[in-house]
Amino acid sequence: MNVNGQPYRTIWLKENDPCIVQIIDQRNLPHEFNIEDITDATTMAVAIKDMHVRGAGLIGAAAGFGMYLACRKASKASDFQESLKSSYEELKATRPTAVNLIWALDRQMEAIEKADSTEAKIQTALDTAKAIADEDADFCQQIGQHGLEIILQLSKAKPGEPVNILTHCNAGWLAFVDHGSATAPIYAAHDSGIPVHVYVDETRPRNQGARLTAWELGQHGIPHTVIADNVGGHLMQHGQVDLVITGTDRTAVSGDVANKIGTYLKALAAKDNDVPFYVALPSSTFDWDIRDGVAEIPIEQRGDEEVKYAQGLNDGKLTRVLLTPPQSPAANYAFDVTPARLVTALITERGICAANEPAIRQLFPEK
Amino acid sequence: MNVNGQPYRTIWLKENDPCIVQIIDQRNLPHEFNIEDITDATTMAVAIKDMHVRGAGLIGAAAGFGMYLACRKASKASDFQESLKSSYEELKATRPTAVNLIWALDRQMEAIEKADSTEAKIQTALDTAKAIADEDADFCQQIGQHGLEIILQLSKAKPGEPVNILTHCNAGWLAFVDHGSATAPIYAAHDSGIPVHVYVDETRPRNQGARLTAWELGQHGIPHTVIADNVGGHLMQHGQVDLVITGTDRTAVSGDVANKIGTYLKALAAKDNDVPFYVALPSSTFDWDIRDGVAEIPIEQRGDEEVKYAQGLNDGKLTRVLLTPPQSPAANYAFDVTPARLVTALITERGICAANEPAIRQLFPEK
Repeated sequence: MNVNGQPYRTIWLKENDPCIVQIIDQRNLPHEFNIEDITDATTMAVAIKDMHVRGAGLIGAAAGFGMYLACRKASKASDFQESLKSSYEELKATRPTAVNLIWALDRQMEAIEKADSTEAKIQTALDTAKAIADEDADFCQQIGQHGLEIILQLSKAKPGEPVNILTHCNAGWLAFVDHGSATAPIYAAHDSGIPVHVYVDETRPRNQGARLTAWELGQHGIPHTVIADNVGGHLMQHGQVDLVITGTDRTAVSGDVANKIGTYLKALAAKDNDVPFYVALPSSTFDWDIRDGVAEIPIEQRGDEEVKYAQGLNDGKLTRVLLTPPQSPAANYAFDVTPARLVTALITERGICAANEPAIRQLFPEK
Repeated sequence: MNVNGQPYRTIWLKENDPCIVQIIDQRNLPHEFNIEDITDATTMAVAIKDMHVRGAGLIGAAAGFGMYLACRKASKASDFQESLKSSYEELKATRPTAVNLIWALDRQMEAIEKADSTEAKIQTALDTAKAIADEDADFCQQIGQHGLEIILQLSKAKPGEPVNILTHCNAGWLAFVDHGSATAPIYAAHDSGIPVHVYVDETRPRNQGARLTAWELGQHGIPHTVIADNVGGHLMQHGQVDLVITGTDRTAVSGDVANKIGTYLKALAAKDNDVPFYVALPSSTFDWDIRDGVAEIPIEQRGDEEVKYAQGLNDGKLTRVLLTPPQSPAANYAFDVTPARLVTALITERGICAANEPAIRQLFPEK
């Protein structure tokens, strides 16, 4: 999507230089927009581990390009296979719970193994990295086209007025290669001339909404308003939200949805006020073995400093401030699970389906 | 309650000096604990307006003491009545929507008028100021005793384990003269030896939970954990909250409750997980004319800078940091309304009652 009026992806091979992969370094957004050159797998591993790049789809794409760079390095090593395997392990260790990471690494290993010369291996790795990135962007675009229909219908009911959409966290293009999941229908609607306005939950404690979603919507010219996470219920009570769209980090085959902490509260408010609550996802987030999301999906707990501090810009410098009494303990649950009964429907790359096992399996019969 | 091991109120007449009223200046809590001397009504007006003191009960008490200082000043003026009236107007203009402010000012005016000498007027104003403060503390203490029974029952069901209580915003002793409303049952339980643990919602955007509730609980030695406002639903899903207690800024006679933005979301989660949701209030917060709280109670919108920035301690200095892109708009609704159907019961100074008009009127038949 657009940054300063230019179309960008979150990761790409540098034009006219096949030795350099470029990424948007997301750490200091929205205050600094930096493009980083990545020339070897070790630097890519650092970029994933230290969250220069983050988000399910983007982590997979970064791992894919990381393996391409690893292949180039291995071609100069005394033992190609040993060098490649070492880079594979290095990349794999960065975010051990990210499903797309391992999936992309394994897909690369398999593809590279099949190629019969060093040169062919490098070309295969590049083709595969590009394919992983393109597929991610394509799936998100398809999600956008399916979700667009929902927004179009709502727009017809209030001609001339913007459709008000609430979203939580960042399931935007910054979390994927392009388009995003939850944001894809919003970009598609905006780009096709449907007036939309987005309420952006700030998403404490890491503020991915206030930092990333607000930034990417603003850069693409989409009207939006940042709100505290406490506000969505009030807005829904007063008819100020036409639909909610969120992403998901892991989706039980029953339709239960694990997403950023606080999603469940918005789903409850949507239900209480008859506001449709959609979850957008590429099918890679389905967990085909889990049926009771609340009981079975493990919830990551992160460091308490994310709750006790907030980071932002002061006098031109990124600054961290202590919010709580120094001695007060804090707890930091990163995700919660929204039961399927609160989800109006899922928006996938293959279409929209109800949040229950028969409907999901009908759309993905091969699983 | 206790600060550094010493019992405090939020406002008091200085010992051995009837010319000085002292307050806890709450602006820089939890990072700085400052006691401020107030010697005239104008300074008290500034303290109310600039939120050195805040909270329904405390604003009333501050107005009461402000009128006492006004009376002392008027006794030296050429026209007592004119001087007093001028201070009355100055105090009244500080927080125009605070019900307790006007109530306390009018109570003082009436009492002072009845006294027949200047000396008697000063003594009456002092007696009335003290009475307003004592009544506020007494009502909160009675709320504490009634609420204690609820915690005691829950404690009996899990002997040896702490009762886990979630609260939102600061309805603590800092918002009153002592004890608080939502916190009064918690202090009463703790002081009588019942083990309790409090989940403190940070309460964005002004962070009254992270700043004030966490501080006052910590100072009184009550185990607590600060959480992002997004977390309560997840905790309730997993049985980690035994009850929710919040305060209220305005309570419809139907039992609908206007409280800090985000309260409604916690009430929905409590209902969805069969967690009791209590609202604690002195009866002065009842609005006897309003029946549909969601439709009728006006919701204050505050400046967007509270959402776009966070304030905390950096390198020993209070510092404000920008969280959002500079150009992103933000909306800042200060309160929301929780419908009575989500409220288990109200805890008042006269006892506990269901959140509906017949039950409320039965407890307050004179209204």
